[in-house]
Amino acid sequence: MKDDKKVKEITSMDEDFARWYTDVVTKAELVGYTTVKGCMVIRPYGYAIWENIQKIMDGMFKETGHENVYMPMFIPESLLQKEKDHVEGFAPEVAWVTHGGNEKLEERLCVRPTSETLFCEHYANVVHSWRDLPKLYNQWCSVVRWEKTTRPFLRSREFLWQEGHTIHASAEEAKAETIKMLNVYAEFCEKYLAMPVVKGIKTEKERFAGAEETYTIEALMHDGKALQSGTSHYFGDGFARAFGIQFANKENKLQYPHQTSWGTTTRLIGAVIMTHGDDNGLVLPPAVAPIQLMVIPVAMHKEGVTEKATEIYNRLNKICRAKIDLSENSPGWKYAEYEMKGVPLRLEIGPRDIENNSCVIARRDTGEKITVLLDEVENKVLELLQDIRDNLFNRAKLRRDNMTYTAHNLEEFKNIADNKSGFIKAMWCGCRECEDKLKEYAGVTSRCIPFEQEHIEDTCVVCGKKADKMLYFGKAY
Amino acid sequence: MKDDKKVKEITSMDEDFARWYTDVVTKAELVGYTTVKGCMVIRPYGYAIWENIQKIMDGMFKETGHENVYMPMFIPESLLQKEKDHVEGFAPEVAWVTHGGNEKLEERLCVRPTSETLFCEHYANVVHSWRDLPKLYNQWCSVVRWEKTTRPFLRSREFLWQEGHTIHASAEEAKAETIKMLNVYAEFCEKYLAMPVVKGIKTEKERFAGAEETYTIEALMHDGKALQSGTSHYFGDGFARAFGIQFANKENKLQYPHQTSWGTTTRLIGAVIMTHGDDNGLVLPPAVAPIQLMVIPVAMHKEGVTEKATEIYNRLNKICRAKIDLSENSPGWKYAEYEMKGVPLRLEIGPRDIENNSCVIARRDTGEKITVLLDEVENKVLELLQDIRDNLFNRAKLRRDNMTYTAHNLEEFKNIADNKSGFIKAMWCGCRECEDKLKEYAGVTSRCIPFEQEHIEDTCVVCGKKADKMLYFGKAY
Repeated sequence: MKDDKKVKEITSMDEDFARWYTDVVTKAELVGYTTVKGCMVIRPYGYAIWENIQKIMDGMFKETGHENVYMPMFIPESLLQKEKDHVEGFAPEVAWVTHGGNEKLEERLCVRPTSETLFCEHYANVVHSWRDLPKLYNQWCSVVRWEKTTRPFLRSREFLWQEGHTIHASAEEAKAETIKMLNVYAEFCEKYLAMPVVKGIKTEKERFAGAEETYTIEALMHDGKALQSGTSHYFGDGFARAFGIQFANKENKLQYPHQTSWGTTTRLIGAVIMTHGDDNGLVLPPAVAPIQLMVIPVAMHKEGVTEKATEIYNRLNKICRAKIDLSENSPGWKYAEYEMKGVPLRLEIGPRDIENNSCVIARRDTGEKITVLLDEVENKVLELLQDIRDNLFNRAKLRRDNMTYTAHNLEEFKNIADNKSGFIKAMWCGCRECEDKLKEYAGVTSRCIPFEQEHIEDTCVVCGKKADKMLYFGKAY
Repeated sequence: MKDDKKVKEITSMDEDFARWYTDVVTKAELVGYTTVKGCMVIRPYGYAIWENIQKIMDGMFKETGHENVYMPMFIPESLLQKEKDHVEGFAPEVAWVTHGGNEKLEERLCVRPTSETLFCEHYANVVHSWRDLPKLYNQWCSVVRWEKTTRPFLRSREFLWQEGHTIHASAEEAKAETIKMLNVYAEFCEKYLAMPVVKGIKTEKERFAGAEETYTIEALMHDGKALQSGTSHYFGDGFARAFGIQFANKENKLQYPHQTSWGTTTRLIGAVIMTHGDDNGLVLPPAVAPIQLMVIPVAMHKEGVTEKATEIYNRLNKICRAKIDLSENSPGWKYAEYEMKGVPLRLEIGPRDIENNSCVIARRDTGEKITVLLDEVENKVLELLQDIRDNLFNRAKLRRDNMTYTAHNLEEFKNIADNKSGFIKAMWCGCRECEDKLKEYAGVTSRCIPFEQEHIEDTCVVCGKKADKMLYFGKAY
């Protein structure tokens, strides 16, 4: 049978997680490869997930007072160089435009890897008085970072993202914004992607180039690797000083404003795949699934089946993103196809169901099949979609908690890192040497200092000196 | 008074149309200049217009069966060169990436000026059988063309656009798609931008590089110059042959599919400005106006005014994009500000209005002030918004018609071109020499062969030979 074959084409997770991932993104038609190294085609089914992410997130940004803008994709080399730490962080990995048409440019331009410098240049033009503040901007665009090894959604030379950029009169307001947007990201991931995240602050080593503080949400993938899923940066007035942005305060004194930036990317699609997916393919959280319910008529040749199935589809399409598959493929093939594509609900309806004024709804997350009276189908579908989100979230949270380990000393740490996959919680004194040593010794990096602190020991897991910070460590994507 | 000053800052159209345009796009805060030559910042108020355009148009694309995708922004030089006419048309004006980080690339990449070649590469990977056809794709992105002279929205080195790309089993289907999307564009411009357009086909000279036919919608701006506002291209199987795209038809024979592409850009914002704007600034058609109605309380210090104004705002914000200005600026300043920003309706409410249970609504298009009972305000606002669209359309159409001239012979043609601004209708034999001669002699280019033909003469306006085609000519942006 064709459906068996379809599923067999996907490598099992346990056998080879990386190949499982590649199989899923290609067979479910999320991406296509190109001859442009490190760049991908985002195909309709993959792009529709991104559109759903954008729509929800954009609504959240606007509700919190942000406006969208568009900055140029090119940054002149001299502009990139204005903030010292920033250029050091990004210059080694940018793409350089050197020619326009047949002419060599006087100054080369980089394709934006991020747009702080462009926003700063713009702020310098439009921010003069306290009345001009705050500016709460966001931009949806693509950026380029010349990565050596690439994987669809997780790391590519070009990727789609949103970058928020805000500028405030006071440090307090900018700090509050940084945390507010981290919370927006966390809420988005947990509520809509059904993906639990750890909120925390990055160590200095892992900080964004030019930031005073970088906040992060970290998720744990099926294979026990951590995925940084969104970051929010507090810049202080460093960029303002570098770019000469000043405003007259209410007392008419010139001051430097304070800035933030925050971003999430198409990497979130990778996060969804690796958080919820299984050996049959994708499992999509209902909020971002391009198709939330697929109607599949059974025994279509029998009188009245297509009509009844179409009637149900028309009803359901009013309350969710429903589709109907009236193609000549067998029901079995269709079941496997939409299972692989992660469609949350499948509705089967055949002659016997029609006789009983019912249909069968199958859940993608549990495989459970439920007989539902046609009169109650709308309510049941809405209930199931919510229940799937809750179940996906709880399941992922349980798995993450089960894969989160505590190390009380260096030996234990090494032992966990060598034999387990997941987060490792441990105390840290705060010095770079200990952080570097853990990487060398155990092959893991610090993920964040979580907001929710736990007391494990009084001493650093590496040096044994006094430590009051508990960190999450892990192998990261 | 501040409001007088505000208006005075805008150069009058008659004095200097180009400066009027620049004044409007900058004072109304649609764009900001940058140090990246030929690139601009699209500021929140400008970008919100683009978001409204996107939302409506994207809905129209989806209703006609199209799906969004995302292709890489880079095209390897060898890929760009696969279709001969296409590369000749675009290579001279692309930006070249030659370095990634510190390394020189083995093959240089251009930043996409348009994405036909990328779509073709993808089609070659995914189109194998008649079952795979048609593919009806669209992409929202930015593209780069290294223009020498640039103007915000009208011509810039980077611009935002959508590019539709479709591939079909038969030439007939592809041709029908080309016309269908031209009609979508025309409907969008007329219904939502209130901008009348002439639909027609381009001459061979003005055709898109690589196309068999290019269709266009042409609008006439306030200054009598033509603006190409959207194009739709039929490619035949030329690209398919160049890229080796073949499919097995129902008889299992290999065939070349037929393609189309079609695009509109942020230039549409320029079109809106130059079609409806006046000496007081922007005049926005309600469908794309970021703010459709601004509530302005008068005598805010009087008891109950702010409360009543806020109540009305809350009611109206449910039925349209309403805002309220509670700032300390004077009502006069606010009137001028939102007039300049082209807000279709302004609602004034002060103590006497409240006493009478009424308010005053001012139309941006006519300046008319209407007293409206508060009980009827929702209905009246919806009616006025529709009426403004109709009035803007009729006004623009009348002006266009009044600025469309007919030339029966070369002398008449030259005379019109020298002394009038607008479209010139004339007969043309179909040869390139006559088209070129008109440009040299009278400084105008052919805009299109309109679908709605008129019979003017039996002979070409240039050479006097037999002619059965009536063309629109004009000076173009």
